[in-house]
Amino acid sequence: MANFKGHALPGSFFLIVGLWWSVKYPLKYFHQKGKKSRLNHHHQRLEIIEAAIRTLFSVIGILAEQFVPDGPHLHLYHENHWMKLMNWQHSTMYLFFAVSGIVDMLTYLVTHIPLGIDRLVMAVSIFTEGFLFYYHVHNRPPLDQHIHSLLLFALFGGSASVSLEVIFRDNIVLELFRTSLAILQGTWFWQIGFVLFPPFGTPEWDQKDEANIMFITMCFCWHYLVAICIVATNYALVYCLLSRLKTHGGGEIIGIQKLKSDDTYQTALLSGSDEE
Amino acid sequence: MANFKGHALPGSFFLIVGLWWSVKYPLKYFHQKGKKSRLNHHHQRLEIIEAAIRTLFSVIGILAEQFVPDGPHLHLYHENHWMKLMNWQHSTMYLFFAVSGIVDMLTYLVTHIPLGIDRLVMAVSIFTEGFLFYYHVHNRPPLDQHIHSLLLFALFGGSASVSLEVIFRDNIVLELFRTSLAILQGTWFWQIGFVLFPPFGTPEWDQKDEANIMFITMCFCWHYLVAICIVATNYALVYCLLSRLKTHGGGEIIGIQKLKSDDTYQTALLSGSDEE
Amino acid sequence: MANFKGHALPGSFFLIVGLWWSVKYPLKYFHQKGKKSRLNHHHQRLEIIEAAIRTLFSVIGILAEQFVPDGPHLHLYHENHWMKLMNWQHSTMYLFFAVSGIVDMLTYLVTHIPLGIDRLVMAVSIFTEGFLFYYHVHNRPPLDQHIHSLLLFALFGGSASVSLEVIFRDNIVLELFRTSLAILQGTWFWQIGFVLFPPFGTPEWDQKDEANIMFITMCFCWHYLVAICIVATNYALVYCLLSRLKTHGGGEIIGIQKLKSDDTYQTALLSGSDEE
Amino acid sequence: MANFKGHALPGSFFLIVGLWWSVKYPLKYFHQKGKKSRLNHHHQRLEIIEAAIRTLFSVIGILAEQFVPDGPHLHLYHENHWMKLMNWQHSTMYLFFAVSGIVDMLTYLVTHIPLGIDRLVMAVSIFTEGFLFYYHVHNRPPLDQHIHSLLLFALFGGSASVSLEVIFRDNIVLELFRTSLAILQGTWFWQIGFVLFPPFGTPEWDQKDEANIMFITMCFCWHYLVAICIVATNYALVYCLLSRLKTHGGGEIIGIQKLKSDDTYQTALLSGSDEE
Repeated sequence: MANFKGHALPGSFFLIVGLWWSVKYPLKYFHQKGKKSRLNHHHQRLEIIEAAIRTLFSVIGILAEQFVPDGPHLHLYHENHWMKLMNWQHSTMYLFFAVSGIVDMLTYLVTHIPLGIDRLVMAVSIFTEGFLFYYHVHNRPPLDQHIHSLLLFALFGGSASVSLEVIFRDNIVLELFRTSLAILQGTWFWQIGFVLFPPFGTPEWDQKDEANIMFITMCFCWHYLVAICIVATNYALVYCLLSRLKTHGGGEIIGIQKLKSDDTYQTALLSGSDEE
Repeated sequence: MANFKGHALPGSFFLIVGLWWSVKYPLKYFHQKGKKSRLNHHHQRLEIIEAAIRTLFSVIGILAEQFVPDGPHLHLYHENHWMKLMNWQHSTMYLFFAVSGIVDMLTYLVTHIPLGIDRLVMAVSIFTEGFLFYYHVHNRPPLDQHIHSLLLFALFGGSASVSLEVIFRDNIVLELFRTSLAILQGTWFWQIGFVLFPPFGTPEWDQKDEANIMFITMCFCWHYLVAICIVATNYALVYCLLSRLKTHGGGEIIGIQKLKSDDTYQTALLSGSDEE
Repeated sequence: MANFKGHALPGSFFLIVGLWWSVKYPLKYFHQKGKKSRLNHHHQRLEIIEAAIRTLFSVIGILAEQFVPDGPHLHLYHENHWMKLMNWQHSTMYLFFAVSGIVDMLTYLVTHIPLGIDRLVMAVSIFTEGFLFYYHVHNRPPLDQHIHSLLLFALFGGSASVSLEVIFRDNIVLELFRTSLAILQGTWFWQIGFVLFPPFGTPEWDQKDEANIMFITMCFCWHYLVAICIVATNYALVYCLLSRLKTHGGGEIIGIQKLKSDDTYQTALLSGSDEE
Repeated sequence: MANFKGHALPGSFFLIVGLWWSVKYPLKYFHQKGKKSRLNHHHQRLEIIEAAIRTLFSVIGILAEQFVPDGPHLHLYHENHWMKLMNWQHSTMYLFFAVSGIVDMLTYLVTHIPLGIDRLVMAVSIFTEGFLFYYHVHNRPPLDQHIHSLLLFALFGGSASVSLEVIFRDNIVLELFRTSLAILQGTWFWQIGFVLFPPFGTPEWDQKDEANIMFITMCFCWHYLVAICIVATNYALVYCLLSRLKTHGGGEIIGIQKLKSDDTYQTALLSGSDEE
């Protein structure tokens, strides 16, 4: 869907996921600190719901790409011509995210699936998106090519970061990094929509102007800065909320009182040495 | 052997290896969980047989490349001309896999060979295949070049993943990832054969058509999706089989009853802390 | 600021930071060895002051880039033209370093921020600088392009190294490596200034001469050698100073007496196993 | 020194180092296994001697490059011309290896130098060699360029591997990998000499023939295979020698009797958990 909506929709999808993660991971982090339990049932149910919603979103994405009026309607090859390969490629991207969502659900539902598989499949999904984008943007005007290729930094960076989570699972720094890249991807899709398909009758961008490309490069950095600020703000809000709840209610909600003596967390995570 | 058979044969080789691994690693994983023993004699013998078969396959590959009617018959240089360098390059690839198989055998047979060497040599073999392919595909039509270069993703990805196993040995996630890439490679070789040398009299593909290249890129992702599904199915089948065996027979076959309290497996692996 | 000052100022900034680090990290290392305490209050205050100064420097950099006579004065777009994008890009680089400084301060001031976030944001800042430089140097004369692109080795190397510190925090080797790259960057900025904008009326360099490019490549290696020597010298000086202080004063200042039995430090760090 | 000797000399240097390492590391490995002591004085003295010899070799290399009859004799710039930059670049490479040798010596001589610094500087030296080679080979005939660029695989691979040793020190697999790459580099330098400057009056190679390039690519793989075989042979010889010595002499020389129960070595190394 090479129009404004076709970029606004995935943009919103990634933005929602990123914003949700920027609340979920701080919540999980403070909870774990307090209770020293790895994964309680409440949290597990939340993860399953999240994965289900992500799967649902992806399926909607596939259906949208296939059954928009000018879509391929599940026809791939017709009269010696490939049908709407662009839509098929987008469907493939959504399909991988659907698979990633399903694997996430299964990992929490079925106990004999090894942890880490969910992260691996997620990394593969993100990589596939980048992989398809990489071969996607040849033979386009310079600005179009450049603005899409910047996305690859977020995608391959995210894929590498999620791969690391296979080994360093539940590392809050990696989780927040992933969150920030998801938000970046979301806002950048919106930016692409605004630049390539100006929605409110604003004038077209000159696709060959070197200054435009230079601005877009810098603009990408600003987007990431905004993503960092959003993650930081939500992290702080979650902390404030939890500490207020604790003051008013019981002392079991979060484990902030233990934070001070706990700065060896990362090393301990790495070694898995349980403090018995 | 630039024909259909020359791609179907290595394709079948990698496919068989991948399918076997997709049964072996889940089996090993469930066994280890149950018995907490690293490597019993039964498993060790299996590994040696597998490595021997891989070596045998590779030797057959070398012989086939050398002694097909239009092969070099071990002549490398003749009358100021290199003889059939294509076949020699393929022989070299098989040679590395043969060496990898031999080192695998030795690692299990001879106790004073450090663990990890087998993985390192396997990583080197896969890298060498990618390395030779990389310089292999210059000066060909675009589609030919593209369809071969996609293989490099599977090869270099696999090489990196196997290298990680030097450090993180027996990590089920890395093993399943390697398995999926082996299957991908196998099915992709078949795909290359079907595209470049249509076997059943189907029409030739236009090697310069941009749409064909675009489809092939997407098709590669679908192959990987199929590979993931195969690995997942076999994993589930192995689990079902083992749990049925356990119900009917004794309780010592697998350790599934311990799985629930064992989700810190990975961290423990990383730290090597034995629970004594 | 495409002139000598525009390179001398950031060069001095990175040089000062690098020199300071080459004193700070050895100091911290010897202290930690002695006391076995992770982070005392004295050290913490020092880190906060350092981060504050880095933030201040970065803010000065932003203001300088914006309000020099030929700067954009915070105007980004004016009469269908982007205003002074070069200065805006430099401002963006400084902005990221300012954010990194703020996050560093917060990590030490606020106990509920996970350790590692500061390193991640620093890695992102350095990466962003490299990212902007990468797209910065197109369409320039060969020597200009080459001399700037060499900087990318220091930047991407530094970014990768700092990312590793997220996992392997307080690893003296990584810290000294980062230090040496900071010094390299500092001296190389000065070198760029001298080559592209000869300050003392020395003749212009021929920007297309292959020999000049060849010399500059080698010169970059020499700069790094000098950086290594500076780090080594400061390391030795800190050691001598501390051991002299110890001889004259009490025995509690450093822990050199424990160094001999402590060469398993790195492994222990990796496992986080405390010797109790 | 663009002639046969100029490639044979560094080739011999790397070959000797590689062969020596292929004896040293197995020796060290079996010793450590037996005695469970990290580093005894005997071994330490050996390391210092090795580093001293490497430093000496490098200094000889520098002097040879500078003071051969057509060398620059320490003149860098003369009458508006850079003097013999090729020789200066080679001198720079040797200089880095000299620094690496000195740092190695210091690490074993001075106890307050953190372990890992020696590996870092070695990785930097190897990277620098690759870095200079990378910019070295532009504007040459295709075969010349290709044969030199293959060296980069050995160099950047070696640099990455040695960097890993900063974290995973004393890992026998990484050490043997480094050893094999050193031997590869040594034999490849000889190969370059034979191809570009045929010494015994053999005919010149056609520098533009595609088949020659194809053969050289494959030949590089064969060289690595030979390097693997050499390392494996020396490993086996060291083992045989040590076990024979043990049978005839006392039982304290090697710890092979402990090898069987010790296949969790790598994991243990990773966690640093001492068996108390």
